[in-house]
Amino acid sequence: MRSDVTATSATGSPSDSQHRAVVETAAVLVVGNELLSGKVQDQNLVELARTLRVLGIQLECAVFVMDEPPAIARELRALSARHGVVFTSGGVGPTHDDVTIASAALAFDVPVVQHPELEAVMRSAYGDACDAVHLSMARTPEGAHLAYGPPAEGTRVNWPVVVMRNVWLLPGIPELFRAKLAIVRHHLRGPRPFFSRSVLTKWDEPELLPLLNAVVAAHPEVEVGSYPRFRDPECKTQITFDARSEAPLEAAVHEFIAALADR
Amino acid sequence: MRSDVTATSATGSPSDSQHRAVVETAAVLVVGNELLSGKVQDQNLVELARTLRVLGIQLECAVFVMDEPPAIARELRALSARHGVVFTSGGVGPTHDDVTIASAALAFDVPVVQHPELEAVMRSAYGDACDAVHLSMARTPEGAHLAYGPPAEGTRVNWPVVVMRNVWLLPGIPELFRAKLAIVRHHLRGPRPFFSRSVLTKWDEPELLPLLNAVVAAHPEVEVGSYPRFRDPECKTQITFDARSEAPLEAAVHEFIAALADR
Repeated sequence: MRSDVTATSATGSPSDSQHRAVVETAAVLVVGNELLSGKVQDQNLVELARTLRVLGIQLECAVFVMDEPPAIARELRALSARHGVVFTSGGVGPTHDDVTIASAALAFDVPVVQHPELEAVMRSAYGDACDAVHLSMARTPEGAHLAYGPPAEGTRVNWPVVVMRNVWLLPGIPELFRAKLAIVRHHLRGPRPFFSRSVLTKWDEPELLPLLNAVVAAHPEVEVGSYPRFRDPECKTQITFDARSEAPLEAAVHEFIAALADR
Repeated sequence: MRSDVTATSATGSPSDSQHRAVVETAAVLVVGNELLSGKVQDQNLVELARTLRVLGIQLECAVFVMDEPPAIARELRALSARHGVVFTSGGVGPTHDDVTIASAALAFDVPVVQHPELEAVMRSAYGDACDAVHLSMARTPEGAHLAYGPPAEGTRVNWPVVVMRNVWLLPGIPELFRAKLAIVRHHLRGPRPFFSRSVLTKWDEPELLPLLNAVVAAHPEVEVGSYPRFRDPECKTQITFDARSEAPLEAAVHEFIAALADR
């Protein structure tokens, strides 16, 4: 048996925290035929999930849809109503299959308009080379605002994220998606951190059932997960513990470890 | 410029096809807190997507939710009504966090019952070692049936999949999930194959826009995708072509390649 302490907590000094908006829950809408045809394996869900976890924001749901405005708009409307913040991944480039901006406008029943501030960013970024394609990428749903990250060293342009109501429109290319998460961290945080621990055991899951049921019943505020591991000679079952405060988490872990030792 | 031919087609002889049910569209519901907290990266969506692609079944949607029966049941009901077949991944073990069977019963408003045929499989598999935990895994939503794959060499037990209406309940552990896809292939097929081709170009996506728009307008039955590639010295943009029949696909690809050569 081995116990891994992997407590995570929201980062940032109190003054840093003050300007960040507090959101409890999140969802993500991942757009792209290539992900549902199996041509490409998604890399963005796990990156977003880890980022939100550290911020203390609960990612409750992820939905993958095709490049079809009616489906995207329907899902966006539902997710936006049900969760504190929604992220989209993909479909924000200049080609015919980039339909997320238009779909977000459809979801909120507003037109797509040229965004003067985003157009200024494009003109500043591309200078004399700024053409109609670049300018077409300054179109947003009417009413959208731009969120900027902290100025990054060595970059001439501070590229913003387009935010429509509670929906953050992120690019699908994994390198760009990850870069935008710095802006998310700059603006959002959860109400309180998550604390997590993990116990690796050499017992099979069915053998652990009575112990697990006891600890689950005794600690309703702790989320307990049980994950059989295949082909791991060191560990047959991983038990995870998650809570929003440290004391009940530690109590549950200690009780479980003590019960394991008594077997 | 390079053109990769990657046509896929439904496999199987005509007689093999006859016993398989034809479904046009599919969705998958992936259950698991560990995927939304970022502890684990999902491996099952891409495997299912590739399997369905080869079968000629369009995977239209994927939804990831937490281990919460009301959310699982709500999504299952919606997905089941909207798609030809639905797969679930995860939550079918014996522990407190395995709630997919109960949630599927909730979705279809039926009780969870002991399934005599599945109980017989458990008794045959475990013999004298068959205990209450094993028997608890023979519980299904009332009205579920079992789907078996072709008998596999070297395996004593032919483990089935539990199917409730049009919902196939698959395990979340990637090794087991993949193994169950053999049963899916044995029972289901799409109405016709997908044909796919891919052209790798050294042009940036914005430079390709006029060519792309022309080919999209001229070939409405061909789905054209455009994917910028970062850090690939050989290819800046990948253009994909997908269709349900070969002739229009080839026409679109040839027209695009000819237009590229004329630049």
